[in-house]
Amino acid sequence: MTRQKPRLVMKFGGTSVANLERIRRVAKRVGVEVAKGYDVIVVVSAMAGKTNELVGWVGETSPLYDAREYDAVVSSGENVTAGLLALILQENGVEARSWQGWQVPVLTSSAHSSARIEDIPTANFDDRFDKGMQVAVVAGFQGISAEGRITTLGRGGSDTTAVAFAAAHEAERCDIYTDVDGVYTTDPRITSKARKLDRIAFEEMLELASLGAKVLQTRSVELAMRYKVKLRVLSSFEEPSDDAGTLVCAEEDIMESNVVAGVAFVRDEAKMTLVSVADRPGVSAAIFGPLAESGVNVDMIVQNIAEDGRTDMTFSLPVDQVARADRAVRDAMAAGQIEFRDLIADRDVSKVSVVGIGMRSHAGVAARMFRALSNEGINIRVITTSEIKISVLIDRKYMELAVQALHDEFGLEKA
Amino acid sequence: MTRQKPRLVMKFGGTSVANLERIRRVAKRVGVEVAKGYDVIVVVSAMAGKTNELVGWVGETSPLYDAREYDAVVSSGENVTAGLLALILQENGVEARSWQGWQVPVLTSSAHSSARIEDIPTANFDDRFDKGMQVAVVAGFQGISAEGRITTLGRGGSDTTAVAFAAAHEAERCDIYTDVDGVYTTDPRITSKARKLDRIAFEEMLELASLGAKVLQTRSVELAMRYKVKLRVLSSFEEPSDDAGTLVCAEEDIMESNVVAGVAFVRDEAKMTLVSVADRPGVSAAIFGPLAESGVNVDMIVQNIAEDGRTDMTFSLPVDQVARADRAVRDAMAAGQIEFRDLIADRDVSKVSVVGIGMRSHAGVAARMFRALSNEGINIRVITTSEIKISVLIDRKYMELAVQALHDEFGLEKA
Repeated sequence: MTRQKPRLVMKFGGTSVANLERIRRVAKRVGVEVAKGYDVIVVVSAMAGKTNELVGWVGETSPLYDAREYDAVVSSGENVTAGLLALILQENGVEARSWQGWQVPVLTSSAHSSARIEDIPTANFDDRFDKGMQVAVVAGFQGISAEGRITTLGRGGSDTTAVAFAAAHEAERCDIYTDVDGVYTTDPRITSKARKLDRIAFEEMLELASLGAKVLQTRSVELAMRYKVKLRVLSSFEEPSDDAGTLVCAEEDIMESNVVAGVAFVRDEAKMTLVSVADRPGVSAAIFGPLAESGVNVDMIVQNIAEDGRTDMTFSLPVDQVARADRAVRDAMAAGQIEFRDLIADRDVSKVSVVGIGMRSHAGVAARMFRALSNEGINIRVITTSEIKISVLIDRKYMELAVQALHDEFGLEKA
Repeated sequence: MTRQKPRLVMKFGGTSVANLERIRRVAKRVGVEVAKGYDVIVVVSAMAGKTNELVGWVGETSPLYDAREYDAVVSSGENVTAGLLALILQENGVEARSWQGWQVPVLTSSAHSSARIEDIPTANFDDRFDKGMQVAVVAGFQGISAEGRITTLGRGGSDTTAVAFAAAHEAERCDIYTDVDGVYTTDPRITSKARKLDRIAFEEMLELASLGAKVLQTRSVELAMRYKVKLRVLSSFEEPSDDAGTLVCAEEDIMESNVVAGVAFVRDEAKMTLVSVADRPGVSAAIFGPLAESGVNVDMIVQNIAEDGRTDMTFSLPVDQVARADRAVRDAMAAGQIEFRDLIADRDVSKVSVVGIGMRSHAGVAARMFRALSNEGINIRVITTSEIKISVLIDRKYMELAVQALHDEFGLEKA
């Protein structure tokens, strides 16, 4: 394929298109990229609140609704935004048209309400761009199954739509416009020293996202990593510039970086300990099987050293799932699947993590982290580590203090 | 095709599906027909107010909007209702699924925002009904063009969707559920003697609809007449019975009828007279051409007998178009296209009409009408007649009196 112009994907979320005034601002921003010489694919969400309204209605019809009909209903919000943006672009003299998922087509699996994109043929757009189309406005979040039914990709799915289009069209970049101006070293509400990152590696972004820095849908980052799509997160509410926002990119595109990229946290965690569990093969499965079946999201797991054939098993979970976990464990005991002496729940803990690809090549990050916390008199309850992340559970009252101490320790205020 | 069950089309308008509670009532009503042994096709409108909201947004984007994008936006309301109704039917144990226009497909012309249905292939539904589908819920008002773009059929288009499905599927009947319980001999607000008609001929319905009895979209009646679709108008807010509502049907299906079926009226009419126009060939075109170009809806036209080569030309129009008509006529005079001595506007007239296929075989209806009005001292300003209709313009203050007198004269309170 010989293309006349490079392609750019821009994605605007619900708050960025919440009303006509904001959609006009989006149109202006899109016009700037067209003027720069891009063929632009814009992916839009539903106007803020619309999808929630539709989801609410579906929920009222039936607790066990048909996911195919759910998708047909909740996908309609994006169609409205796509059409309105195309109209405003046209009014601004830009050659634009809207595309619904089935028109592109965005081919997906049949897993309704959490479908996966399988293919996005580019022939339709290639042909239109050749014939003078400057902007394709795509309704995000939706696709079509092999059976010809409308599918949706799960909440936040428009991010994934945008990245998938960028991959299929080999776009120069995928700009995700949102209500924050980038990815920060930590939450600026915790410390004013928090600094916006110019670049962050895909792997770091995945750890930060799953740890609670909810800027991008996790799947969209995974997809961008797999297809090496350069992803830029930036604010739709600020005057744009070329170095605005944060570029999420491959490790090799980051020239030099701090050992630690950021400090993440999850405030409302709980810790449960089964005291004196028999330490025999299969006991972990006997405990965590019933928890998973009850829908408890177990995060960290620690097992103490066994003494006299018995051990303590500790795990963390969201604080609002403690009652459910308690029931699941006691039911398993009643059924004779496990036995333990005591079940202790601590609902007043938080998780704090340091994340950075630099850890791979730098030893001693954990030691520095533990010392910094110790210097503040903060007791560590549970520790887990991965290749690029160290997480600890601490008493919740120390959470802000811990984040600030770690932010200082690793010098994150400096680029 | 060998069908196991007869098919029925049911159509529910915006007020009938205005919220989930009403959609539940619709589902119950549909369930009754399923239980009777019908394969049912339900055509739904958007929830009341939704389409207006979408139309408003499009209007704000641009005064000269792209009708293709208009259609993509405003068609979304019907998709929501169709999905929600399918879900509630399923919850009631009925095998139902929703269909958007492009899925059926409802093939239309490319005249966006006023497209005409060209074909509705039935294979998709035949196959599904064979496999156990009991109800197909169709999003009304929409279709797909040969170019693969979404089209809409114009306001009230869901009526036409319903009739087109009934024709394509050779349905036993097409039931149009609305907020009135049938077609009346005249507006019950004018006289309590107004009687609901059990049956009315297509031709009569067309005259009544275009005269202001806005129960059905005119095009849907024309389509029903062409394909001999039995059309029943009934209320979605009353307990249904087999003889509920009014059946709109072919003349031959009406055993015996009154000479006059109903008395229609248009309250806010105006009458304009060009005094002393030169009576020469082409003068009518010179007057009514500019009026049409200005968007004036001229209705009745009367030309007096010419005297000395000059004549008076009188026409009726909606009262809110008088200023526009005045300007158009005076501009045409300024341009030398016409000349006249005076232009008189009377803004205080109403149109009253009697309609009935029985007129074809009964002479003297006009005479009876004029005498009845004369007996009440009502002066007739203008008269026009067609094969099954006689209309008069009278002073507005007599309108209610005229309707009541004619209703009595033709014995319409009696079946």
